[in-house]
Amino acid sequence: MTGYLIDSLTTTDALAEAFSDASVLDAMVAFEVALTRASGSVGMIPARAAKVIEEALAPEVLANRPIDAREIAEGGRTSATPAIAMVNALKDRVRTIDRDSAGYVHWTATSQDVTDTALVLLLRRAVGIIAKDQDRIRESLKNLSDAHAGTLMLGRTLLQPAAPMTFGLKAAGWYRAVTRSWHRLIDACEHGLVLQYGGATGTRAAASGRGAAVAVAMASELGLRVAVPWHTDRDGFGSIATASGLYTAALAKIARDISLLMQAEVSEVAESGGGSSSMPHKRNPAGCTVALAAATRVPGLVAAFLSGMTHEHERSAGGGQAEWSTLAALVQATGAAAAAMARVLEGLTVDVRRMRDNLDATGGTIYADRAVTLLTGKIGADTAHTIVAKVLQHSRESGRRFSEVLLSQSEVAAALSPEELAGLVRPESAVGDAEALRVQLLSERD
Amino acid sequence: MTGYLIDSLTTTDALAEAFSDASVLDAMVAFEVALTRASGSVGMIPARAAKVIEEALAPEVLANRPIDAREIAEGGRTSATPAIAMVNALKDRVRTIDRDSAGYVHWTATSQDVTDTALVLLLRRAVGIIAKDQDRIRESLKNLSDAHAGTLMLGRTLLQPAAPMTFGLKAAGWYRAVTRSWHRLIDACEHGLVLQYGGATGTRAAASGRGAAVAVAMASELGLRVAVPWHTDRDGFGSIATASGLYTAALAKIARDISLLMQAEVSEVAESGGGSSSMPHKRNPAGCTVALAAATRVPGLVAAFLSGMTHEHERSAGGGQAEWSTLAALVQATGAAAAAMARVLEGLTVDVRRMRDNLDATGGTIYADRAVTLLTGKIGADTAHTIVAKVLQHSRESGRRFSEVLLSQSEVAAALSPEELAGLVRPESAVGDAEALRVQLLSERD
Amino acid sequence: MTGYLIDSLTTTDALAEAFSDASVLDAMVAFEVALTRASGSVGMIPARAAKVIEEALAPEVLANRPIDAREIAEGGRTSATPAIAMVNALKDRVRTIDRDSAGYVHWTATSQDVTDTALVLLLRRAVGIIAKDQDRIRESLKNLSDAHAGTLMLGRTLLQPAAPMTFGLKAAGWYRAVTRSWHRLIDACEHGLVLQYGGATGTRAAASGRGAAVAVAMASELGLRVAVPWHTDRDGFGSIATASGLYTAALAKIARDISLLMQAEVSEVAESGGGSSSMPHKRNPAGCTVALAAATRVPGLVAAFLSGMTHEHERSAGGGQAEWSTLAALVQATGAAAAAMARVLEGLTVDVRRMRDNLDATGGTIYADRAVTLLTGKIGADTAHTIVAKVLQHSRESGRRFSEVLLSQSEVAAALSPEELAGLVRPESAVGDAEALRVQLLSERD
Amino acid sequence: MTGYLIDSLTTTDALAEAFSDASVLDAMVAFEVALTRASGSVGMIPARAAKVIEEALAPEVLANRPIDAREIAEGGRTSATPAIAMVNALKDRVRTIDRDSAGYVHWTATSQDVTDTALVLLLRRAVGIIAKDQDRIRESLKNLSDAHAGTLMLGRTLLQPAAPMTFGLKAAGWYRAVTRSWHRLIDACEHGLVLQYGGATGTRAAASGRGAAVAVAMASELGLRVAVPWHTDRDGFGSIATASGLYTAALAKIARDISLLMQAEVSEVAESGGGSSSMPHKRNPAGCTVALAAATRVPGLVAAFLSGMTHEHERSAGGGQAEWSTLAALVQATGAAAAAMARVLEGLTVDVRRMRDNLDATGGTIYADRAVTLLTGKIGADTAHTIVAKVLQHSRESGRRFSEVLLSQSEVAAALSPEELAGLVRPESAVGDAEALRVQLLSERD
Repeated sequence: MTGYLIDSLTTTDALAEAFSDASVLDAMVAFEVALTRASGSVGMIPARAAKVIEEALAPEVLANRPIDAREIAEGGRTSATPAIAMVNALKDRVRTIDRDSAGYVHWTATSQDVTDTALVLLLRRAVGIIAKDQDRIRESLKNLSDAHAGTLMLGRTLLQPAAPMTFGLKAAGWYRAVTRSWHRLIDACEHGLVLQYGGATGTRAAASGRGAAVAVAMASELGLRVAVPWHTDRDGFGSIATASGLYTAALAKIARDISLLMQAEVSEVAESGGGSSSMPHKRNPAGCTVALAAATRVPGLVAAFLSGMTHEHERSAGGGQAEWSTLAALVQATGAAAAAMARVLEGLTVDVRRMRDNLDATGGTIYADRAVTLLTGKIGADTAHTIVAKVLQHSRESGRRFSEVLLSQSEVAAALSPEELAGLVRPESAVGDAEALRVQLLSERD
Repeated sequence: MTGYLIDSLTTTDALAEAFSDASVLDAMVAFEVALTRASGSVGMIPARAAKVIEEALAPEVLANRPIDAREIAEGGRTSATPAIAMVNALKDRVRTIDRDSAGYVHWTATSQDVTDTALVLLLRRAVGIIAKDQDRIRESLKNLSDAHAGTLMLGRTLLQPAAPMTFGLKAAGWYRAVTRSWHRLIDACEHGLVLQYGGATGTRAAASGRGAAVAVAMASELGLRVAVPWHTDRDGFGSIATASGLYTAALAKIARDISLLMQAEVSEVAESGGGSSSMPHKRNPAGCTVALAAATRVPGLVAAFLSGMTHEHERSAGGGQAEWSTLAALVQATGAAAAAMARVLEGLTVDVRRMRDNLDATGGTIYADRAVTLLTGKIGADTAHTIVAKVLQHSRESGRRFSEVLLSQSEVAAALSPEELAGLVRPESAVGDAEALRVQLLSERD
Repeated sequence: MTGYLIDSLTTTDALAEAFSDASVLDAMVAFEVALTRASGSVGMIPARAAKVIEEALAPEVLANRPIDAREIAEGGRTSATPAIAMVNALKDRVRTIDRDSAGYVHWTATSQDVTDTALVLLLRRAVGIIAKDQDRIRESLKNLSDAHAGTLMLGRTLLQPAAPMTFGLKAAGWYRAVTRSWHRLIDACEHGLVLQYGGATGTRAAASGRGAAVAVAMASELGLRVAVPWHTDRDGFGSIATASGLYTAALAKIARDISLLMQAEVSEVAESGGGSSSMPHKRNPAGCTVALAAATRVPGLVAAFLSGMTHEHERSAGGGQAEWSTLAALVQATGAAAAAMARVLEGLTVDVRRMRDNLDATGGTIYADRAVTLLTGKIGADTAHTIVAKVLQHSRESGRRFSEVLLSQSEVAAALSPEELAGLVRPESAVGDAEALRVQLLSERD
Repeated sequence: MTGYLIDSLTTTDALAEAFSDASVLDAMVAFEVALTRASGSVGMIPARAAKVIEEALAPEVLANRPIDAREIAEGGRTSATPAIAMVNALKDRVRTIDRDSAGYVHWTATSQDVTDTALVLLLRRAVGIIAKDQDRIRESLKNLSDAHAGTLMLGRTLLQPAAPMTFGLKAAGWYRAVTRSWHRLIDACEHGLVLQYGGATGTRAAASGRGAAVAVAMASELGLRVAVPWHTDRDGFGSIATASGLYTAALAKIARDISLLMQAEVSEVAESGGGSSSMPHKRNPAGCTVALAAATRVPGLVAAFLSGMTHEHERSAGGGQAEWSTLAALVQATGAAAAAMARVLEGLTVDVRRMRDNLDATGGTIYADRAVTLLTGKIGADTAHTIVAKVLQHSRESGRRFSEVLLSQSEVAAALSPEELAGLVRPESAVGDAEALRVQLLSERD
């Protein structure tokens, strides 16, 4: 894709930049330069060659005369990897300086060594970008939860009023899922973002016994952990893909809730911004929409990655060659969701009054199960159920509040004290362990 | 994505261009200009405004001072649609010429009218590009099938030798699936690539009764069929997505077969090209690999589209906003597969000798079921089965050819004439209706 | 799966039955009996054998001594197809009657001939079951649309109030998408549900020239269209899978809308039923939830099917062997959605009063863009925009109705007649071509 | 699904049993009984009620008069959860013994408490079943790797000969990926398979302050960890789903390799078994095929799970209700792959001779890059490249072995000693660090 627009809602500027041609070329060159340095340092290639290559591929040199990304891309399609055209382009650069040194570019490495390590470097940078938004999200959620520890609201199941809870508990649940999922992604990166260096079939044969030393030196250059060649073991990337999927889903759950709470008829929270091209009055859940769009896109990309993991022998013919585009799209969508939700949560306004009004508007029917529970101890479960069912029906038909009708029942008046009845329909008394659970959710590390 | 590289193996230059910022902007402007012309022509907006807008947005004018795609993209993320920032940018252009005319840009339309119609225009162009490769594929497959109508080869099931067939029949099977799938895609485009014009909630209310006339005029301008507004009915795009999935799978089946037939140990066909960065001797199935990579990527994108189709009310909050990126990625991957297979099939070399050698190398065991069939008529099924099983075992253990061992059985010699036995293990006699079926496959329309 | 429960929400009793062991065995036996009859009728096998086999596999005979499905399943895992164990079981049955006839069971066919044709028969039955629910859905939607042609309601975009429309138009949009998608599924079945009969490598070699005649006779027996062997061309099944995906999505869009309209705070429609285990007062969108669950499940199953289509050579080693379970799961989920929505739509109650109340509760802000349009003609676009923006802000801050504040503006009073202003905020005047489009949607066949 | 057949290739008998109606009912009853005991033990319900319920729902009692699964399933579709019909059925049982005790069945719990905990119990059992196959797989892989530490074979990239390696290294790579992925799954189970108990909106309000104590007691009864209610935080299940996906992919990679190595033209390994219904000579990769079929199915199921994770508020309307069927299908497919590969690997035969023959059959071209490397040090990179390219071409055209042609070049003879040349084309000298890496792979825990 050569642009910002077609993918505009499923990436961010920073992440688009992180996977731009310039970034990809940088990452590939970084691998080749690290390989050259490492090879020189262990005496595997002539010191002069190492020096010439490093100079020829220095950032400022390449900045002056950039490599033609389009040519590399076209070459990539002919050989099913961009590495060959890239290596050839680099050799051409070196050859203009020193003919013999050119032969030492990419020395002992195979195409997948550079494409995998480059992707590792790109993902490391991308996840670093997302981490900043995750910090904002975590902070905002914690603050929202603390600020609304006592804010009463309707809990809703299957989109229907269920029982009271606090907004603080709701925000703490969001916090927990998103934080736990983020840690899973970070763990996956720590295990999966490691050096790839194995040569043709992963034996490092071309390095004639110096492969391990070269690997250590390269990894150190690139700030990566060294690893046994993993050309066809894709579970490292795979666990980053799946962890991204879980993290995006946790963000999208928040977005779903907020977009529902923002409905005009509910109006319990609002994100800032969100206009329309034809309707000046609109305040759309624009950020939530971006996060939900990402979550629509991501599961299929996870599936695409997983179904490509069945690599043939020592290098796949098909399964692996879509990984660059799939992981890049996946991580960008994840980051788009994180950026959007960071903005949404930092700017979220909460209408405490409206939350209470919506609770009250249920007419007390949400306390029906509390009534059953309370009455059961006094008059037995079956009678309790029968009375409450009758009261609910009467309340529905007459439009009178459930609590009023309930109190008017002689069996109830006989069984419950006025204090018990009042407490029954008071939301403050009906949120159970909300606060204790909230605190527990915020303190868990998992 | 701002580049060619990260997606290089899952697109082509032409398709990347078709979804580039320039193309997307062109398509959006085309919608707005068509709307303006149509609105002017039916008298819905002042003639002067129509003229001013058309001039201000003329290709040559915009070419001189291009719209900043990155700004539109960033704006898109704030409002969950690139349309608002785009319309504002266009209004700004018009306003510098005539203040009042600017108000008539996008008049009566809603964001999704322009984003949907723009996507329709982009897809139409993209499918046109793929069509050229499909022509080459169809032609090549027909030629391969005709040229090898009589070329004997092993049919293989579960990757094991099964029974003889012809390469002509195999190619005709490829032809049929790919042609039929292509027609499905074209049909989907004919039904799905239609004008979107409905205004805020699809009633065309803002057009005050002139909506139908405007729609007809716009559709004519853009060369599209007119349609009832379909803001949240995504089955049109959906059937293009799914048809692309089926077509890509048909291409990938060919790629799978060719990559397997190219294995050094099989060597029955070869595609041209396909080098390696570290191994000068390699001839890789590079084109097939690109097609298989596309097929790895596409099903997940189809799923992503389908799972976004559950749009809320008159415009989705999430499900639809990833459609641009998902459909663009999907169609580009489809086109990458088509371009790769067009190249592969045009350059495919077939080793008729090796096909025959591989047939012969089975030692005749592939005729075991033929032997059972033939013997059953003479000596009954059970005896036939028992003899053939014994012969197979003996042949395996001794390394002698199945046919030899078979002939050496007295019951067989008694039951079959020498001619029958010879015919039994002659591949030419063992391909059944291959030719008739081949001809039928090539002549079928759907 | 050996039960009803674990999949209870993603199938129906009738569909679970349609894919039960009994149904699968019936379908496989039906293939073998049809093959035997056809083979006998063209003289390919002895008449006596045909007669013996048919008698031994007659429904009443098998009913008395059923085949052990669990044994076939276990055998299936050993050979990667249930066909071999099944054929052996059938041969055993025949052998007890006549030793030689047993050899003619499955004569000339290959495993995939029976597993594919059996799946075809199962799918035909399953789609027939769904068709009845689709009839109910279509009828209900048409009735709802006609009954509410003039029922005004809020159109909502991104879950926010947008502009008025009619419930009749909304229902007509549902009708169109669901009807069009259903026709696509029926078309796919007509093309894809055809006889499979090709023998080992699709050449019908074992039939020694009588294959075409056998195919015609078998197809006639089974009520299927004859077809060239399509062992590795899976686009027929594939298009049924994808069409199911599109149809389920169309149903789920209705379910999404209804579940949102049923929210206590919205309360515009209600499905009947939907209790809760702990909350006696709940009226859940239970049917919509079942449909939405199906739509959550289906896209992944479509992707699974598509990604298995890359069959190797003449029979896949992996891609095809999950098709039975994937297509069965997919079609059952589709049918669960259809059954649920048939029930929901037949029992749907519409609260016309509440729809109007929710419209009014917007305080007229939804007419802001109408105001801009109307004023533009009188005082120019820029001024119109500025005034309306000011009015909106004032209305928000003061809590006064938008229309009141608008009228209180001197520029507006000067520009618009009282009639114009009244019409501006009257929803009846603001639904544009809703009725014409509604009628068009209901009459389209596509 | 009511049977073994339709899903036969994507489950095992043991796993089908683990998700059968009996197992599901058992798991749900286990939850209710544990809840009752816990509630009794903390004094939340009358001791008598706890005793009556426990007796009424005792395994032997239910065994005598089983609950009708089909009725529960049908009820489930009406209320979008099987819990309500189930609880009612249990209450009916208790009521026949003691009317008042019946009211205490399911006391304080919500539907999702029982459906989630039941699924946890089912998954725990299922993963325990798979663990046994994983033990066999790990053991077999370790043994294969150790036994073939020195077995030379072709490494293959893009399905083409690349460079020599050992079968021991290949098996160690399989070992590593599958072991690491298994640990990931076990970790996910440890974190995700925890008690669900939260009541209507996750506050445990109905338990009136005794919720935490009840949770602890229940968890202890069921052998589960206690957890804060996680009704709409699905990442626990989600990480089991994704880890299953990664583990299945690791198994399928082995299956892919083995199925390719089993091709008649390659014949380097063989699994035992694998017949055909029409071809008596066939030895199919039947076990690998089953594993590959599972891997075809699983990614889509992972995507289905992920895309359902966007639960609305305190209980989803759609996203969660397909989880039972999706996770059950996913885990069964995973287990089918594990069972198949356990069998394959335990019975795998390795043809060491054929591995060597296939190496030799390359005519030495696979040493071309080694030649370049060796010659570069002597005659410079460019000359080395030119010579080797010439030799490769000559070798291809003449059909002579690469090594022979190479030696015949005067520049080469001058540059290399006979010993160097001999070593160059000796596979033993060309496997680099294969052994050291193999040992490392087997010893890593990760």
